[in-house]
Amino acid sequence: MTPEEFRRRGHQLVDWIADYRARIADRPVMAQTKPGQIKAQLPPHPPNSPESFDAILHDLDSIVVPGLSHWAHPRFFGYFPSNGDLSSVLGDFASTGLGVLGLAWQSGPALTEIEEVTTDWFRQMVGLSDAWQGVIQDTASSSTLTALICARERVTQNSFALGGLQAETAPLVVYASAHAHSSVEKAALLAGFGRDNVRQVPCDAAWAMRPEELERAISVDIAAGRIPCAVVATTGTTTTTAIDPIEGIARVTTPRNIWLHVDAAMAGSAMILPECRDLWRGIEAADSIVASPHKWLGAAFDCAVYFVRRPDELIRVMSTNPSYLQTAADGTVKNYRDWGLPLGRRFRALKLWFLIREQGVAGLQARLRRDLWNAQWLEREIRNTPGWRILNPVVLQTLCVRHEPAGLSGDDLDRHTTAWCDRLNQSGIAYLTPALLDGRWMVRISVGAIATERKHLEELWSAMRDVVV
Amino acid sequence: MTPEEFRRRGHQLVDWIADYRARIADRPVMAQTKPGQIKAQLPPHPPNSPESFDAILHDLDSIVVPGLSHWAHPRFFGYFPSNGDLSSVLGDFASTGLGVLGLAWQSGPALTEIEEVTTDWFRQMVGLSDAWQGVIQDTASSSTLTALICARERVTQNSFALGGLQAETAPLVVYASAHAHSSVEKAALLAGFGRDNVRQVPCDAAWAMRPEELERAISVDIAAGRIPCAVVATTGTTTTTAIDPIEGIARVTTPRNIWLHVDAAMAGSAMILPECRDLWRGIEAADSIVASPHKWLGAAFDCAVYFVRRPDELIRVMSTNPSYLQTAADGTVKNYRDWGLPLGRRFRALKLWFLIREQGVAGLQARLRRDLWNAQWLEREIRNTPGWRILNPVVLQTLCVRHEPAGLSGDDLDRHTTAWCDRLNQSGIAYLTPALLDGRWMVRISVGAIATERKHLEELWSAMRDVVV
Repeated sequence: MTPEEFRRRGHQLVDWIADYRARIADRPVMAQTKPGQIKAQLPPHPPNSPESFDAILHDLDSIVVPGLSHWAHPRFFGYFPSNGDLSSVLGDFASTGLGVLGLAWQSGPALTEIEEVTTDWFRQMVGLSDAWQGVIQDTASSSTLTALICARERVTQNSFALGGLQAETAPLVVYASAHAHSSVEKAALLAGFGRDNVRQVPCDAAWAMRPEELERAISVDIAAGRIPCAVVATTGTTTTTAIDPIEGIARVTTPRNIWLHVDAAMAGSAMILPECRDLWRGIEAADSIVASPHKWLGAAFDCAVYFVRRPDELIRVMSTNPSYLQTAADGTVKNYRDWGLPLGRRFRALKLWFLIREQGVAGLQARLRRDLWNAQWLEREIRNTPGWRILNPVVLQTLCVRHEPAGLSGDDLDRHTTAWCDRLNQSGIAYLTPALLDGRWMVRISVGAIATERKHLEELWSAMRDVVV
Repeated sequence: MTPEEFRRRGHQLVDWIADYRARIADRPVMAQTKPGQIKAQLPPHPPNSPESFDAILHDLDSIVVPGLSHWAHPRFFGYFPSNGDLSSVLGDFASTGLGVLGLAWQSGPALTEIEEVTTDWFRQMVGLSDAWQGVIQDTASSSTLTALICARERVTQNSFALGGLQAETAPLVVYASAHAHSSVEKAALLAGFGRDNVRQVPCDAAWAMRPEELERAISVDIAAGRIPCAVVATTGTTTTTAIDPIEGIARVTTPRNIWLHVDAAMAGSAMILPECRDLWRGIEAADSIVASPHKWLGAAFDCAVYFVRRPDELIRVMSTNPSYLQTAADGTVKNYRDWGLPLGRRFRALKLWFLIREQGVAGLQARLRRDLWNAQWLEREIRNTPGWRILNPVVLQTLCVRHEPAGLSGDDLDRHTTAWCDRLNQSGIAYLTPALLDGRWMVRISVGAIATERKHLEELWSAMRDVVV
């Protein structure tokens, strides 16, 4: 496509996106699509000749959009807020338009240095000391995998150069709470620890890890000749936004030099609010942290910031240095290829840079506070309504809710819960995610889409009361 | 940013990108930036109040663009062609604007099904049988890591559920040629194999793996009680685009049930030309393949397609199924979260879908043929010029070149080589990548940026002859 054709089509697409976002509230939130319905509308073979751009745009309207669940919808309360503020969308568009890659500092100096500056801005925003350095990864999943590999390497005294994990005789063990994200166990398995060597540490009544249980599990493993390797603590679990007590956990890990990784994928954004920072008290004792601005904060996906205190431990496992990547600047610059899994890197910093500059820290703080207040408003409404129950301490923006009609319990209650949630999702009015908590279904309401105002919570609450009848 | 503000600013940014691409040839190809120069121009602290979008656009012009090496430049011959055709840039922009995530099919049915269809189109384009299924990963690095983890799992008979790699007593071994990409060894180390268990199989005179040497290395390991686990063969190595003989390698791996992964990150795109497919003869015997449309083909980075014959072996290691990700459609749909490392997924298929539709297969083929012819033209010019040498068989679009003045050899020749390459890069006329080949420096010319026409090769060749004097 020529630049002039791009100019013409780009203007069309800007208008198309602007219209999509402006009118999104009119759409059903959750896709009403049947499995296979999209595929059936698409040709089974690629076109040999070029198609007109109009045909592509037409299919966006007629096939793509009706086949999506709309994460930017003001009544999207599923999973977590995955906000791509439109300022950040433009930052990402600029990155794609420039089309540069950060294989080495020299291959795109601004790509590297703006990432250094922007992740440092974010560090300051969440109140971390300047002992931390940041790098943008795609997701918290990859960041946690990275952390566990670094932990493995520390405890095996750099087995990369030797027999790898295969040379170890005493098994290494990873610890996380039973409420840690599924990506934690996945990362441990991918890194070769094996499920036998992943411990689920028991939680307290608020589903937060109990440091004394961690202590106990570690002692049992040591007594059995196993080696505690890493602990993953979560600031804001997926199911209930439970807050593992970092300070208490660090009292267990620090004396033993066990790697402490903090998964703050969701709640990391909240740390731009000084009033929230007590939630990760003790954070400076961690070895690594991941916080994902592509969630609540508003950076377009994918943009997870991975913070480390000792970059050498990261670079040791990630560094490659073939001749074709060497440049005269090596040694005086950051080569971020040595800070993560993939070699190739987009200019991801632009989407965070645009977001922070266009919104300002105060603007971002105001939006997050709005969401906290909205969640608290809904919490009060629900608590004050007979037959409804809030199951979790609403410390952030996620509510765990159950409608408990008199006389219903056990499996009957489960069926009622999933049925009303399904009815609500199918109605198109809102999108909520059901989840298990202590073996029973409940419904999560994750507040914080950029477009979500109080009135959308009111509409949700009204719809909830309608569908349970 | 409101949709209306986005509309206004988006139009500005479309024009900005169109202008950038239209006038890119006037810029120095390689950044003339000094380390720290970009950082020094940026505020050390994030802005508290919003900045105007004009200020951000201004900084794109005054700080970002002068601080970049321009991969879309017609005289960019470094590394490899990382083409983001402007049609694909729009596809990616649409994805970011929609802002949906593919955690589960239900969270974005069109995201999943268009990925199924588009990767199947690409499968047909590169001539693979319908035994293969594709998934979009970020890069070949991550795909190779994925392949090695799957291989590890096959040979340990699903150790994930048990002691992991730690429970194995006989070490597992990975094989690749000495010319495999640095990401292969990195992946083996990340997956825990250890450097002691990574074999560099000797190559023939064209830097391709010798199957009989592979056979020999495997026999030695088996005799020593080690377990051959995976072979990574490369279709188009980074340094010389050497072609490992898949058919001969498969004759070694297939009878022993050793995982064969083919890294066709670069040359996979060439397989859309039927006349090139003999280069990966025997490919159907592989277990996994990665080909990266974000290189030569023109999909905006990041877009690597990972093909597998047995999805169950992939899903077994990648699958997570917490309650909050379960939906009624599970079992009848693809949940691509179970096909790769990260849980969160962008709507990456759009950028490949836009590219293939807007260009058509014939259009993409014509461009790649143009690049092959251009490379062959330059090869002839250089071969016919005394004092210059082409070191590799130019099977694709990469030339390995040395200027060898009479009387110069050894370290003196190395100094001459890196000096003229550096002068050329510093001049801003072109960007080439020096690399070691058989212990001596040479210069790679990687042809295939979308904007590169014959005249740009002529300009390069003229500049090369100027700088060696």
